[in-house]
Amino acid sequence: MLVRLRPRVAFHRSHDRMAFNGKDLLGIRGLSAEEITTILDTAESFKEVSTRAIKKVPTLRGKTVINLFFEASTRTRTSFELAAKRLSADAINISASTSSITKGETLIDTARNLQAMAPDAIVIRHPSPGVPHQLANLIDAAVINAGDGAHEHPTQALLDAFTIREHKHRIFGLQVAIVGDIMHSRVARSNVHLLTKLGAHVRIAGPRTLIPPHYERLVEDPEGSLTVCDDVETAIEGADVVMMLRIQRERMNDAFFPSLKEYSIQYGLTARRLESASADCIVMHPGPINRGIEISSEVADSARSLILDQVTNGVAIRMAILFLLVGAEAE
Amino acid sequence: MLVRLRPRVAFHRSHDRMAFNGKDLLGIRGLSAEEITTILDTAESFKEVSTRAIKKVPTLRGKTVINLFFEASTRTRTSFELAAKRLSADAINISASTSSITKGETLIDTARNLQAMAPDAIVIRHPSPGVPHQLANLIDAAVINAGDGAHEHPTQALLDAFTIREHKHRIFGLQVAIVGDIMHSRVARSNVHLLTKLGAHVRIAGPRTLIPPHYERLVEDPEGSLTVCDDVETAIEGADVVMMLRIQRERMNDAFFPSLKEYSIQYGLTARRLESASADCIVMHPGPINRGIEISSEVADSARSLILDQVTNGVAIRMAILFLLVGAEAE
Amino acid sequence: MLVRLRPRVAFHRSHDRMAFNGKDLLGIRGLSAEEITTILDTAESFKEVSTRAIKKVPTLRGKTVINLFFEASTRTRTSFELAAKRLSADAINISASTSSITKGETLIDTARNLQAMAPDAIVIRHPSPGVPHQLANLIDAAVINAGDGAHEHPTQALLDAFTIREHKHRIFGLQVAIVGDIMHSRVARSNVHLLTKLGAHVRIAGPRTLIPPHYERLVEDPEGSLTVCDDVETAIEGADVVMMLRIQRERMNDAFFPSLKEYSIQYGLTARRLESASADCIVMHPGPINRGIEISSEVADSARSLILDQVTNGVAIRMAILFLLVGAEAE
Repeated sequence: MLVRLRPRVAFHRSHDRMAFNGKDLLGIRGLSAEEITTILDTAESFKEVSTRAIKKVPTLRGKTVINLFFEASTRTRTSFELAAKRLSADAINISASTSSITKGETLIDTARNLQAMAPDAIVIRHPSPGVPHQLANLIDAAVINAGDGAHEHPTQALLDAFTIREHKHRIFGLQVAIVGDIMHSRVARSNVHLLTKLGAHVRIAGPRTLIPPHYERLVEDPEGSLTVCDDVETAIEGADVVMMLRIQRERMNDAFFPSLKEYSIQYGLTARRLESASADCIVMHPGPINRGIEISSEVADSARSLILDQVTNGVAIRMAILFLLVGAEAE
Repeated sequence: MLVRLRPRVAFHRSHDRMAFNGKDLLGIRGLSAEEITTILDTAESFKEVSTRAIKKVPTLRGKTVINLFFEASTRTRTSFELAAKRLSADAINISASTSSITKGETLIDTARNLQAMAPDAIVIRHPSPGVPHQLANLIDAAVINAGDGAHEHPTQALLDAFTIREHKHRIFGLQVAIVGDIMHSRVARSNVHLLTKLGAHVRIAGPRTLIPPHYERLVEDPEGSLTVCDDVETAIEGADVVMMLRIQRERMNDAFFPSLKEYSIQYGLTARRLESASADCIVMHPGPINRGIEISSEVADSARSLILDQVTNGVAIRMAILFLLVGAEAE
Repeated sequence: MLVRLRPRVAFHRSHDRMAFNGKDLLGIRGLSAEEITTILDTAESFKEVSTRAIKKVPTLRGKTVINLFFEASTRTRTSFELAAKRLSADAINISASTSSITKGETLIDTARNLQAMAPDAIVIRHPSPGVPHQLANLIDAAVINAGDGAHEHPTQALLDAFTIREHKHRIFGLQVAIVGDIMHSRVARSNVHLLTKLGAHVRIAGPRTLIPPHYERLVEDPEGSLTVCDDVETAIEGADVVMMLRIQRERMNDAFFPSLKEYSIQYGLTARRLESASADCIVMHPGPINRGIEISSEVADSARSLILDQVTNGVAIRMAILFLLVGAEAE
């Protein structure tokens, strides 16, 4: 299954720009540690824009960014739309419910038709893994994967790394626990790639039925930097970062665990469970959170929780990605 | 019930700007007559913008306005979006059907997440009274109530007052009849607050089942400036302004009146019924109108009808509100 | 039936601007050959804008364009939105599912309400023929028909003509085959008007049940420039242009033909069927295409196919229309 998910093309190198020289952002898997660092450094300079009285720079004036969403998403679509607008780009939203898809057009034809309108970037969210890669091979515009099935969600992992670095001043050597429904989580997968590339140790925990067999093999890992733990306590003990995943009830077709209450008792992050973590452990969650299920309100609203910082940093990361893919040559 | 609807916070005074110095616009109830007059005066200067060949001023460049609509609305959403764009702000639309709400996120978390993206204003319409107040307490951005349940719809009352003042050159001392489904009408409630604050006499009429008991107590009213009339004829007689409310069929869960035809006969505004009003009486309606039910086409399309003026003035009022809450400090 | 579809007003002449002096674009039927040529020439100058690094001109800054869509459409709405934004206009999208229509407002009132917000242009798509004309008679803003039932789709015919002219350097004297569901096709109807006005010979083919009786009388045609052919082979033989129509399965309420497979065999455009056309024949389709039904993938993806050129040119045509109707006086 992992082979099927392996992207054929991850980060094209077709232009000659700077350290970060791809055409698309399809996944973290194909990025080098240097490219990731370039993105994070670029986002730092853009974070300040959203704190100004006039939250806008002319960087991408006259560029067209299309948000093509085949799954509903408030926060990701809004974050990309804001990022585009704060860079002065024109943003166009297309949601599946109003699209030609209902008229039976193939994805390939939709892609070619959008390309014919000369967009500079297409931000795509799709329930099927690999769709952004297909799109990227077909069109000249930069393609940004905003989540493809259970495969990758690269901008989420980048904003997570940005948030960790902002608070820990490093990624290298950190112990990061990722807890929850690993199997269905593109957030987990992108984070595992990113964090191990930058030298963190990642510990995975969750219901056995929700961890794919041989998940350790997701990354080439001579140093054993990815560990699947038997229980959530082992994963959290001494951790510098605890990242809780959302229970995606809408994705649950099978009975992976007895009940939400059962899940909450066994895997939910409570203040008590967090006691064994590192003294300055930070808590993260990609949102939207299910209070009282995968995370207690006490933890979610505590000073350790960086959940809202993640949202703020998401805009900065997306501005950086749009700038690097669409705007860098204009400098 | 009225107590429950009483806003805890109406118009925050947290900044030190000018006569109009609130953070939010949550309702008319908490505004002073001076604040209302400031808004109306400000709207006058913005009305001219929409008559220019280039209908745009740079006032709110680099500001972000989020339209967060939990109820469908063409005219109010479009009016706010136009107001934002004509002030050069970036406008982002979020409708409930595509939002995280469907993923079970609480409103509080939605609010905090939006705040984390650093918007300058959130325009919210919600079926539950008090939601804009909750939001305002949670976030730094200006919150503008675009209608919360049967509670308040302050920009509607402001645009109504603007329209009356434009034609009558005053509010003080006018006799204003408000006729229809008073119980479910946030428009009526906001107008009662505004008009009595500015010294008008308001007469309420409608089916007894659709007027809350002791409605006169809605306002502190030593001078008896709010009267509930026994029939529509009494309310209209000698009135300077007749404001008809929309029969909101979608809100009718109970049998409040026998039939639409019955309602039309007893309460609908016809040319004949209008004869007893003041000779230069003006007719208003918040729209969308139900022709032949609460208002006859003859009246709606007559020279007395200011229904479309109200729509035009709505853009000016919303520009003024956005300017006063978001842009004033930039002057 | 054709009489019913006949527009009362086609291209108003109320302003005194230039060769192209209408208020609205309601259909091709009411345009003169000179007006069509003016639009095509204007589009040529705008096509270049979308190829620039900064794809934006300030031409319509401060103008408001409302996209009012009562039928779903990705490509047409996106094309108009892009055209508006690349001209620096403010674009507002309204779709029927979220509009006041669900509240029972009449179209006339919706139109008057939109007009009251002072838009410069309203782009309307509606399932009923004649609605754009009604709208145009009611409001001051420019009305652009983006498809009204089976009546007209003028910007599609204009972009088709632009694409033909770009490749054939003329329209006059060309043999153009239009094949498919003629009866339900606003694209066919607008193209017949345009192409015959500019001197092309049009040959119609399709299932007999899908060609209205006396279709030749659609145009005043002393020179016999519109021919209904008995079979698709006759229409294609020696043709300079073959334009395939989309089988609109959603429009099929009756059993117009036995099956899609049957249709494909009898009317679908295959490489073999295309052999009898002119050696340099070009192939067009308004999209979205049904691969393997009305057109084979081999043909759709061949060098002869200009389907994606049509999409690209659509943005240029819509920029030209917006400029001519809204912006010309600002020059």
